[in-house]
Order: sequence, then C-alpha cells, then structure tokens
Amino acid sequence: MKMKANYIADPQAWAEEFEFYVEVKVRFSETDMFGHLNNTVPFTYFEYARIEFLKHIGFSTKWSADEVTKITVVADLQCDYLKQVFFDETLRIYVKAARIGTTSIDIHYLAKNEHDEACFTGRGTIVQIDKQTGKAIPWDEKEILILHGK
Amino acid sequence: MKMKANYIADPQAWAEEFEFYVEVKVRFSETDMFGHLNNTVPFTYFEYARIEFLKHIGFSTKWSADEVTKITVVADLQCDYLKQVFFDETLRIYVKAARIGTTSIDIHYLAKNEHDEACFTGRGTIVQIDKQTGKAIPWDEKEILILHGK
Amino acid sequence: MKMKANYIADPQAWAEEFEFYVEVKVRFSETDMFGHLNNTVPFTYFEYARIEFLKHIGFSTKWSADEVTKITVVADLQCDYLKQVFFDETLRIYVKAARIGTTSIDIHYLAKNEHDEACFTGRGTIVQIDKQTGKAIPWDEKEILILHGK
Amino acid sequence: MKMKANYIADPQAWAEEFEFYVEVKVRFSETDMFGHLNNTVPFTYFEYARIEFLKHIGFSTKWSADEVTKITVVADLQCDYLKQVFFDETLRIYVKAARIGTTSIDIHYLAKNEHDEACFTGRGTIVQIDKQTGKAIPWDEKEILILHGK
Repeated sequence: MKMKANYIADPQAWAEEFEFYVEVKVRFSETDMFGHLNNTVPFTYFEYARIEFLKHIGFSTKWSADEVTKITVVADLQCDYLKQVFFDETLRIYVKAARIGTTSIDIHYLAKNEHDEACFTGRGTIVQIDKQTGKAIPWDEKEILILHGK
Repeated sequence: MKMKANYIADPQAWAEEFEFYVEVKVRFSETDMFGHLNNTVPFTYFEYARIEFLKHIGFSTKWSADEVTKITVVADLQCDYLKQVFFDETLRIYVKAARIGTTSIDIHYLAKNEHDEACFTGRGTIVQIDKQTGKAIPWDEKEILILHGK
Repeated sequence: MKMKANYIADPQAWAEEFEFYVEVKVRFSETDMFGHLNNTVPFTYFEYARIEFLKHIGFSTKWSADEVTKITVVADLQCDYLKQVFFDETLRIYVKAARIGTTSIDIHYLAKNEHDEACFTGRGTIVQIDKQTGKAIPWDEKEILILHGK
Repeated sequence: MKMKANYIADPQAWAEEFEFYVEVKVRFSETDMFGHLNNTVPFTYFEYARIEFLKHIGFSTKWSADEVTKITVVADLQCDYLKQVFFDETLRIYVKAARIGTTSIDIHYLAKNEHDEACFTGRGTIVQIDKQTGKAIPWDEKEILILHGK
C-alpha cells in the first residue's frame, strides 16, 4: 500500500526528511486475535518515539518534578496503516517536527520494518500548556532555536 | 475547546446525527502520570464502540470461527482531544457510519462525559478484506441494506 | 480445571463468600494472537474491580485531590488461570476482603463467565501509605468499622 | 523493601542464579495518576522477558504458523512490588527456569533498575498444551536437554 495520507505531499521526500528513530519490538501482548499488531498500539509507539525525540533535541521531559509548570499535551493524533505488523518484529519509529507553531509542534511519524518497508505513518500536534491553567504557552527562545536546529 | 476537526463540517449537525453509543468507565490503569486519561486509550474505546455498533446494526463479528473468510480491518484512525478526561469518569462513546463505500465504511466517533460535554472526537475507515489474501471485498447486498438502514 | 491456588482452602466455601462484583466485557484489543484474553489483562480487571469494591464499602478513592495524603498501593498480585476467556465474553469479577491487617487488606478475586464457570482467580495485598513518605499508615477507626462490615 | 516472597528461599542466592535478562524502558503510557509504573504493567514485561528467554535457550516461538500444534500458555502468574518505578527508567528483567516439570516450567523473574536495586520480583508456571485439545503435552527430549542446559 502506498503512503497517501493527506499530510504527505511527496512520499519519497517526506520519508527522506526523517533522521531520528527509536526501535520497538512488537510484544506478544500487543497482538490481537487477528494475529497481528492491534491497531491501538501504534499510538503507544508514537508516544514513546515522540518523547525520545524531544529528549534527543534537548527538550525537558522532567514532567514529574513539583517545580514544573509547563507540560506538553497531545491535541490530536492519527495513524494510517499500510502493512500488517506481526509479533516479534522490530520496528523503527521515525519522528520529525514537521511544522513549528508558536505554542505547538506538528509531529510526523513513520514506522518501518526490518525489510525497510513502511508499515504505518502518522502525525499529531502537541501543545505546550500551563500545568495549572491549561492555557497554551509559547515556546521560549531556547526552545525555538532547538526546534529550528540551531 | 471547539469541535473543529476537518471531518466535522457543522459541529452541531454532526453531533446530532449520532444515535448509538456505548458507555465506558475510565480505569485507573488508563490514566497516566499527568493525572488524566492517557492519549492512547481513546483508540481502545473507539474499537470497543465500533464493534458494538457493528453488532448493533446486524454485522457479524464472529471473526474467530474457522469458516470465516472475511474480516474488517482498520485503514486509518484519528482522534482530536477537546477536554481532559479523568479517572472514574463515565463516558458515552457515540458511533456512526458517516460514509459508506463499496468495500469500506468511514466511521465517526464522539465521546461525551456525564455533563454532556464533548471530550474527544474521532474518525477512521474500516475495510472488509479476505482473511487469506488481504484483498478488499465489497459489502454484500444484505450488508449494504443494513448500512443504509433498511 | 479446579480452583486449587494456595490461597483457596475450600473452593466452594471460598467462592460462596463473595458478594460484590463488577462486570467487564472482553475487548478485542485485550485478546492476543492465541485468540483469547491475554494473560496480562486480568490484572487490569482486578484493579478496576478492587477500586469499585473500595468505593462500594465506603472507602475514599478521591486520590487526585491535592489535599490527599494517604493512598493505597498494591504490594503483591497474583492470578491463576482456569479457563480460556474469549473476545466479547462478559465476565463477573467478584471481590472480597479476605484478611484485614493494621495497614493492609488481602483482597481476593474470582472471575466467572456467563455460564457461571470460574475462569480465573486471584489475590493481592493492598497497603495504605503516606503519599509523601511512602510509610505504611494504619486504617483509621471508621475504615476498620467499614472493613468489618459494621 | 526486602525480597521475601514465598518462592524466594535465600534472596541473595536466588538473585545470583539469574543469567539472562532483557531491558525495557518504562513508557509514559505505562505510568498512572500516582506518577509511577502501573501495577498491571510488570506482567507485560514478564511476558516479553519470558518469550525472549525461551528463544534464547532455543525454544521455538513460531506460534503463528499453521502447522504449529503445540503452544505454551500461562497457568499462573504473580508479582511482588518492592520499589516504585518511574517513567523513563530502564529496567533489566531477569528470567530463569526455576523448576522443570514434565509438561511445565516454573519461571522466576527479577526486575532491577539502573542502580541495581530490585524493583519487583515474580514467578509463574507455563504449560505446554495441544493447540486443539488444550491437553498438556510433555516436553520432548530435545526440549528437556535444552531446559537442563545441555
């Protein structure tokens, strides 16, 4: 199946822009009675990959500390399934910041199996909010520099 | 937050078209360290609601039987988060068939809390495929009648 | 298969002592590629049933409030699998307080299917601790009266 | 907290017998509103570690193939929680075959954090059964040699 989700203009160019990835191994408990990866599990992979990506570029993920006032939450999330994934496969979950807003980032995902085949793609917006009020908070200067890779 | 996902033209009309729903109670194990429902969980609610909906309209969900040759799989899935959901809340997950294709259905979802507030919305296409070959199979006459509510 | 776990002296007497139960419906995402309920899922049912039981007898489960200083945590947990459970089955998860300690409760579980067959049994100790220090805290007078059904 | 579960005679000797382990990283979605690893998650780690262990010693885990007639199922499972585990920690899940029966293996587990502290321990029996009849099947000669490390 082709990558044809509406957030992918040119599949090849889109796929080539990814640099960062994490590996996940499909757990037995993540399969379902159809014999393959249950469709709800890619979202847990996205979450894991997204957090590793944020740490990688230099964002803080020390959200449990009492002094933390800003957290990032997920505003929306979607997944397009291209190819069945099976128990015990190792997937690379690629992540990139596709668009950077004032208070948000549009993050894209691409999962590839050991044969370098795209298994599913996805995207979702994360927003930085105030832990108490829930209001959106702009990225600070340091974060903006990080997000633009400087 | 407003319902403004691109699959919702007129929020009020869209919400009023739902008739069927299932109830789910947010489990403690479904929360995360931010204190609310983890963003990966609505997709398990969607799956549960979708299957109950298919049973409700008269579709077979006896997928485990050996003689079964046709199953339905998820082609894509998305969720838009509007309002935080907390442990122990009871949600109504509304489901409807928004668009009926030859081999697929576009299913929409709306989750409301006990105060009748929309907490998240979603959509996703399911496709009927041959269990062995993976090829898409058109809905039969009986299924088409069911899908059009006749 | 017989109920023969070491926490069950007389299976019939043990089963008859249960009064409280909650119902759960086996979700598709809770099955695995063997076609039945994955063995990790009963523990999420136990958690759900335990919390409903605690609410039922009159214990507070308002753990998210800032003023809360005492929480209950799980010290150990076990499950004995007697009978395969399948997608779409409705189970009754029975719960009882089998032994009441100064700071803990030994809670027992019994899952029955729609044919009143025992599918799995379990037990586990919960302990009341101080949210900050993690030290065990004795049940107060009101809680002791509740636990002894007065 | 000490390792004092009834399946551990001498904690130090018991811990030293482990050789094989897998690493897992605690996912955000695996925490709960108490801020730490939800108590239902260690069982998914046990399953993952057990399967990797079985593959490591040379057992087949190609359970999805049509020609497979024997599978291993879990007869019971338990976990003793010693120390809170938090988001983003990397755990080593140690596994060993503690007792080998004719048709079963008693498998033990030990989870250690990056400071080499025991976080939780566990055990559970797996049984080899016929996929169709569900009857227990003795390990064959090759498997027995493997299990006894020859």
